[in-house]
Parts: sequence; C-alpha cells; structure tokens
Amino acid sequence: MNRILVIGAAGMIGRKLLQKLAQDGSLGGSQIAHATLHDLVAPQPPPKAAFQVRSAASDLSRAGEADKLVAERPSVIFHLAAVVSSEAEADFEKGYRVNLDGTRQLFEAIRKVGGGYRPRVVFTSSIAVFGAPFPEAIGDEFLSAPLTSYGTQKAMAELLLSDYTRRGFFDGIGIRLPRSACGPASPTAPPRAFSRDHSRAPQRAGSRAACFRGRASLACVAARGGRVPAPCGGAGGRAHRAAAQSHDARLSVTIAEQIAALRRVAGDAPARLIRREPDPAIMRIVKGWPRNFDAQRARELGFRADASFEEIIRIYMEEELPA
Amino acid sequence: MNRILVIGAAGMIGRKLLQKLAQDGSLGGSQIAHATLHDLVAPQPPPKAAFQVRSAASDLSRAGEADKLVAERPSVIFHLAAVVSSEAEADFEKGYRVNLDGTRQLFEAIRKVGGGYRPRVVFTSSIAVFGAPFPEAIGDEFLSAPLTSYGTQKAMAELLLSDYTRRGFFDGIGIRLPRSACGPASPTAPPRAFSRDHSRAPQRAGSRAACFRGRASLACVAARGGRVPAPCGGAGGRAHRAAAQSHDARLSVTIAEQIAALRRVAGDAPARLIRREPDPAIMRIVKGWPRNFDAQRARELGFRADASFEEIIRIYMEEELPA
Repeated sequence: MNRILVIGAAGMIGRKLLQKLAQDGSLGGSQIAHATLHDLVAPQPPPKAAFQVRSAASDLSRAGEADKLVAERPSVIFHLAAVVSSEAEADFEKGYRVNLDGTRQLFEAIRKVGGGYRPRVVFTSSIAVFGAPFPEAIGDEFLSAPLTSYGTQKAMAELLLSDYTRRGFFDGIGIRLPRSACGPASPTAPPRAFSRDHSRAPQRAGSRAACFRGRASLACVAARGGRVPAPCGGAGGRAHRAAAQSHDARLSVTIAEQIAALRRVAGDAPARLIRREPDPAIMRIVKGWPRNFDAQRARELGFRADASFEEIIRIYMEEELPA
Repeated sequence: MNRILVIGAAGMIGRKLLQKLAQDGSLGGSQIAHATLHDLVAPQPPPKAAFQVRSAASDLSRAGEADKLVAERPSVIFHLAAVVSSEAEADFEKGYRVNLDGTRQLFEAIRKVGGGYRPRVVFTSSIAVFGAPFPEAIGDEFLSAPLTSYGTQKAMAELLLSDYTRRGFFDGIGIRLPRSACGPASPTAPPRAFSRDHSRAPQRAGSRAACFRGRASLACVAARGGRVPAPCGGAGGRAHRAAAQSHDARLSVTIAEQIAALRRVAGDAPARLIRREPDPAIMRIVKGWPRNFDAQRARELGFRADASFEEIIRIYMEEELPA
C-alpha cells in the first residue's frame, strides 16, 4: 500500500498528477492508501479519489515543516514545489530559501527518520540547469551551467538528490521539466513575463484568456543510474512515469509553430487575440534558453513525446476548458 | 593596495600561497597592505612578509564568523578551507556544514556588505566534481557528476560561485585542484586513506616519513566566462594565477610512475621504504577517479603543467625538507 506525499500539490503539475493518481488508484502496481497534499495554500483534493486525502498548508522552507510532513513516513514523495524562474531572479533570498533550503530540509528530514526508512523521492528539476552556448541537441550528459539563480538552485538540488540517493537515504529520481507552454494559472506562482509576448491565447469559448503556460511541453530529460542529470537508484521508473506521464521526452517547437498549431486546432479567432509585444530584456533571456534535446534516457525510461503541439493544445482544451 | 583574506591558511595550499605573496609583496600588480590568515587553528604568518599579517582562528561554518572576516572588506579573498574527501564521506553532516554551509555563509557575508563592495574571490574546488565513466580526456565542459559527498559539496559551491559572480556580488574564480601527491601533513586534515598504500616515501634524510600528499600535482582545471566549471567575470586571472602558480594545468602520472620518479630523484633508499598494501575498498574508490584532462581553459589562463613528476619531487624537497 502506497502512502503518498505531494509537495507543491496546488500547482499545475501537482494537480495533473493527483488527477492521474485518483483515476488509477495505484502507483507502480501498488494500491494508494493515503495522500497528503501540501502547498503554501491548501491544495484541492482530486475529485473521486478512492484513497484518503489530507490537505496541508505551510511554508516548507520554515524549520520543522518538512519533519512534520515526513513523520507520516510516506512511501513515495513528489517534491514539485518551487519558486519559479522569474521570481527567483527578482528575489534572490526567496529563491534560495525555497528552492534550495526547502529541498534540503525535506531531504534532511527524510534522512533523519532513519530506521530503514527509504522512500522513493521524485524531484522536478528544470532544463534551466543548462546554459548557453548549446550543442545542436542537448544530450543526457551535457553539463549543468545554469545562467539563472533558479537554474542554479535546481542544479544544486539535483546534486543533493544524487548524493542522498547514493548514500542510501532515499531512492531519488529527478525529472528535468521543460518550460511550460500551455495550461492554467497557478495559485501560488506569479505570471511569467515571457508569456506576455505571445501567449494570450484565449480558450475556444472566446471569453477568457488562458496563458500558454503551465503544461510541460517542450522536452523532458530524465536520468537514472550513477549519472547527472539526476542519478536514481532503485526499482524502475514507475513513480517517475506516473509523475510525468503527460510530459514529453522530446518535442521542440518555436513560438510561431505554437501559434500556427493553435490556429489549426482552434481556428483564427483565438490566434488573432495573441498580441506581439517584443521586449528586448525578455528576448535576451530567451536567447539563452535550450531549444533542442536528445533525451535518450527519458525515452528508455518510457517517457513519450507528444506527437505535436496540436496534441498538446487538444489535451489542454479537453482537460482544462469547460465544454 | 590589496587587503587579502586567506581562509584555510593553515593548510598546504594556503601556506604555499602566503610564501609566494610574502615573496612578491604584491598581487595582480597591486601592493599588498594587509593579510588576514584564517583557519580552525591560528595559521603561522609567512616569514619575511613586508605587509601586516593578522592570524585568526574560528569555525567558518558557525553563524557570524564569515561576517566578522568580511567586515574588513578584503579586496581579494582566497577560500581554501574544506573538510577533505575521506572525512566528508565519513561524516556526512560535517562535510555539508563546512564545505557547503561554510562556503555559502562566506558568499552571503560578502553579498550583505553591499555598498559597491565586490571583491575577487578565489575558490579552490576539486576534480572530485567529476564522476566516472570518463572520456579519454576530461575537457572543460565535462559534466559534474560527483560520486562522493565531497565532490557534491564542491560542485554545489561552484554553482554558488557562478551565480554570485553573475549577480555581481563578487568577482569569483574557481580552480579545480587535482588530488594532491606530494607535500607535508596539514595541521587540520586527517591523513588520507589512499596515502597508505603507496606513499610512505621518506624525506631524503631518511629518518622521517613524508606522505605523497598535499601538493597539487596531477591536473588543474580552471574556468572563466559564463561556463562551469567555474564561471568568473572580471579582470584577468592574476589572483587566480598567484593562487595556483605552483599547480599544473595538466600532468597525469600513475603511482608506479611516481615511484619511478622518486627513485630517479632520490635514489633507491627512500623508494624501498614504500610499502605496498592493497586495500580493496580504496582500490574501488580510486577506480572512479578521473585520470586525464584536457585543461584548455587553464592553459589559456596561464597555468602551466610541471614538466614531470621528478620536477614536483624536486620542488617538494627544496621547499619542504631540511637541507
């Protein structure tokens, strides 16, 4: 029987993950008995879950909070919580406190339980661990040379994940999520600046704007074994796949291709509402972003790429927009 | 006028660095007015320094200690202090406290001075940031996938060094020192296990054993610009070169070659005192060590490789052994 802890459960990925877990009722072939959903604000329980759900709200980076969550000895811990890139860049101290110290306190809390406790830990990292200049396709062994504080914090957390796994304190697995491209707003994260210039793509109903953000869509690089990106011992990528089943192993599209896809799926009307507002500062940041991946390890683990950006938009409309 | 702070000044590298600084009287073309030498035990001042020297002893990882050191607003800070690899592996908490938290507290102390204060920070990292499997020669862009807690802590500190430099809090430069091969014992570090099986090479006088350790000898990989190993903005590699002038950009030798070199330099008598004591646990660790480097960036910065291991032994004998 699995006891699950999802930290950052109020965000888009947490919500999708919980929908999937509630639907399946099991994880890695083992039934789910209980789930604790944690975030800064109390997360909504997924509809129709057959397992017990408890919601908890607190600041993970505060001393003692991680210990409380881990005291329940969850068998699988999804650590999805983070201050996003723009906020970590704007607020240096907050970024390090949440993204580095919060993660380390969680890992330390697990280590200190002791007594043979060794949960599976699924950690969502980011392709922000990479920095330009890039090779034509970024492979699993490309170095982490982040160009943002957010990327630095994620790369440091990956190193911790590896070391705690190697030492046997838990069974960690890291997933480098790409920039999100399509999805609802998060209750805790501020809007992303980059969304401004291309992504006021409204829903099909035409009345409410929905940012192109929230849903991971460009690439997903995962790793296991003794190697960075995120070395992970233990049995199989099951929890891992459950966490990321809706994300791509590799799909790279430009903004223009995204808009063209939107036009094909939803017609001219929503696409026409996209405003082009070039911002030199944002363009400079975006220039440094990785664009293309050879996510071999992720494919070997069973991740699959969405076939096209149209598919991503269709899934988004199905899952998120009122019929 | 330079005001210099050396943290970890009682160690071998700190001592060599201070000898060199005392001899030159200047650093990067600018006269040295003052040096503070810090370590767990009060470091010996270098003989014949023309500048003021103050020795300080405390635990850098204790809250407030870094702030006290940085309050003097040194223009150049050498951060050499670390718990060594074997100790960081044996004492998980101590390794993270000293190697990660101590470094971060130093960086934070510098950041918090503010008011345009932006010192040069020279940080000694390690080739332990690399983990097997290795390419034939490890280049400057090889990923950091450490296989020890020590390597993890050094890799995390490199990431911090990069980010603090990028944010303009200081002008950082990192040097990845190789495994040391020849030198006196450190007053704070415990003997290294690996030394046991090959390195009881006594001094020429024949009466006192001196480990093959302490002096960096295999390779030195440095970096600057926007890239890991250790991105470093700012003007030139002067402080950097001063810190590492006696270290190699690239020289790879096996233990057998080291012993052969010792025999050529010092004759059969000391070489005969080396005991062969194979230890399967140590051999396993050593198997995972990097062996060969293409340290292009270090060469471009002016690092030079010692021509041979004989040269290293000769320098060691000149500098460290009583005539």
